[in-house]
Amino acid sequence: MELIDGKKVSAALKQEIAAEVAKMVAEGKKRPHLAAVLVGHDGGSETYVANKVKACEVCGFKSTLVRYEDDVTEEELLACVDRLNRDDDVDGFIVQLPLPKHISEQKVIEAIDYHKDVDGFHPINVGRMSIGLPCFVSATPFGILELLRRYNITTKGADCVVLGRSNIVGKPVASLMMQKADVGNATVTVCHSATKNLKDICRRADIIISAMGKPGFVTADMVKDGAVIIDVGTTRVPSTLTKSGWKLRGDVDFDNVAPKCSFITPVPGGVGPMTIASLMHNTLLAASHAIYK
Amino acid sequence: MELIDGKKVSAALKQEIAAEVAKMVAEGKKRPHLAAVLVGHDGGSETYVANKVKACEVCGFKSTLVRYEDDVTEEELLACVDRLNRDDDVDGFIVQLPLPKHISEQKVIEAIDYHKDVDGFHPINVGRMSIGLPCFVSATPFGILELLRRYNITTKGADCVVLGRSNIVGKPVASLMMQKADVGNATVTVCHSATKNLKDICRRADIIISAMGKPGFVTADMVKDGAVIIDVGTTRVPSTLTKSGWKLRGDVDFDNVAPKCSFITPVPGGVGPMTIASLMHNTLLAASHAIYK
Repeated sequence: MELIDGKKVSAALKQEIAAEVAKMVAEGKKRPHLAAVLVGHDGGSETYVANKVKACEVCGFKSTLVRYEDDVTEEELLACVDRLNRDDDVDGFIVQLPLPKHISEQKVIEAIDYHKDVDGFHPINVGRMSIGLPCFVSATPFGILELLRRYNITTKGADCVVLGRSNIVGKPVASLMMQKADVGNATVTVCHSATKNLKDICRRADIIISAMGKPGFVTADMVKDGAVIIDVGTTRVPSTLTKSGWKLRGDVDFDNVAPKCSFITPVPGGVGPMTIASLMHNTLLAASHAIYK
Repeated sequence: MELIDGKKVSAALKQEIAAEVAKMVAEGKKRPHLAAVLVGHDGGSETYVANKVKACEVCGFKSTLVRYEDDVTEEELLACVDRLNRDDDVDGFIVQLPLPKHISEQKVIEAIDYHKDVDGFHPINVGRMSIGLPCFVSATPFGILELLRRYNITTKGADCVVLGRSNIVGKPVASLMMQKADVGNATVTVCHSATKNLKDICRRADIIISAMGKPGFVTADMVKDGAVIIDVGTTRVPSTLTKSGWKLRGDVDFDNVAPKCSFITPVPGGVGPMTIASLMHNTLLAASHAIYK
C-alpha cells in the first residue's frame, strides 16, 4: 500500500508555479494577481482564504483580499464582482463560498467574467470541461487528477466509481475521468443516495473516488484488493485529542481499508492540500492567457 | 415487451406545442419563430432541415431558412449568426451541422447567443444542464428522457448503462440520468472504446442507452431479462429492399434483443422522431421566455 501524499504533491506544484512566475517576472511580464472576496467571519472560510493568501506568497503572486461584513447586500457584492471583472491588474478572482442566505450564490458565480473564473464554477467553464475544451477546471477535481497523474496510476479502462454527484466534486470528476485523456478514459459509474446496490458496485471498482461527507462510510468489505482510494470527504468530528476540539475525518474507514489498497489518500493530507494548489495553477493559467486569449 | 413508439410520442408532443401556440396567438402574443442555417447540399442535412421546417408548420411556428453554398466563409457565417442574434423576431435558431471543414463548428456554436441556442450546444447551456439549472437541453437527450417519462419507466435507482461518450448524446444523457429528478436519479455507468468488461456491465443494466453508431453491436447475450433498451444508433447500411439503396440500422440486434426487453425503441421510429419534436419544444421555451427572461 502506498500513501498518496497530497501535502508533498501540493508543495511540489506550488514550487513549479513559483519557478514559472520567477521566469515570467524576469522576462518583464506582469506578476500574476489573484483576488479573493470574503463575506463575514465564518471560521472555515477565514482559514481557507488565509491559506489561499499564503499560497499566493509561496507562488510569487500578488494577492488582494476584499472583505465584507455579513450584512453586505447582493447589489454591493455584484458591484464588487463587476469592479474585479474590469480591473486589468486582476488575472483571476474567487468569491469564497458559502455566502449569507440573502445573497444568491448562483447569481454571483454567473456575474464573474469567465475569463477570470479561476474557481471554475461559471457555467461556461463547467460546459467547456464537459465538452472537453480548454477551461478552468475546478480545484478539487483538478487536484484529484493531478494526484493520479503524479503517482502514475493507470486510469485507462479502469472501473472508476464516484460516490456523490455534487456540482463541485462528483459530477465534474466523473466527467474528467471518462474523457479520452492520459488521466481519464476510465469506465465511470456515479453512485448517490438513490443507488441500490452500492456495496456491490464499490467491490468491483479499481478506483473509488468518495465525495459524500459521510465519515467512515467506505468500509473494508466494500473495497477489493489492490483498489485505489481517493477520499474527498472532510467532515469535522468532535475530538478530545486536538486543541480545537474537532478533527477532520474522511469518508473512508482508513485503518481497515488502507491495508487492502494499492494507493490511498489520507484525510487530512490527501486531496485537501491539492485544492489550493489547483487554484494557484488556474491563476497562473489565467495570468499567462493559456486558456483564453 | 412493449415497443416505444417515438413517432407517436413525437406527434403528440408537436400537437401539444401547436395547442400552446394557438393559445399564445389568441392572447395576442407573437408567433414563435425558429430560423435554420443550412450550408451546402449534404443529403442528410437537407432532409433534416426540411423536416424541421415541416415540423414548424405543424407546431404553428414561423420558420426561416437561411442557405449558403459550401464555399461560404467563416466570416460570412459568423455575420449571419450575429444578425440572427440581434433579430428580435427570431426566438431561436440552429446552424445545421456538420459544416464544411474550413469553418470551425465550435466557433460558430459559441457565437450563437445562448438565449437563442435551441440546439443546446453552447457551453453555457451544457454547463447549466450539468449543474442542474434551467437551460436548453439538446434534442436527443431531451427526446430520450421524454420517451422514458411518457412510458412511465422507473429510472430512480435503476442501473443505467450509457454506451458512448459523445458530446451530443452520451455525456449529456448520462448527466441527465444521474440528476435528482423524476426522470433521472439512476446509477449511471458510461462505457466507451476503452471499457474492458462491456458485456458484463451491460448484462447488469436495467436500462441501456446505446449511442455508438455500431449496427447490431448490442446482442441478446448482453441484455438481461426485462431490461429497457433505448437505441440511439442510426447508421445507414446498404439495402436492396429500399428505393434509396440504404436503410437505417440501430446499435441493437433488435430481432434477438427485443423479446428479452420490457421496453425497446425501434430504429427507425424510436429516438429519431423525438429529436425534431425536442427542438420544437426548445423553440417554444425560447419564445415564451421560460428558461431565460
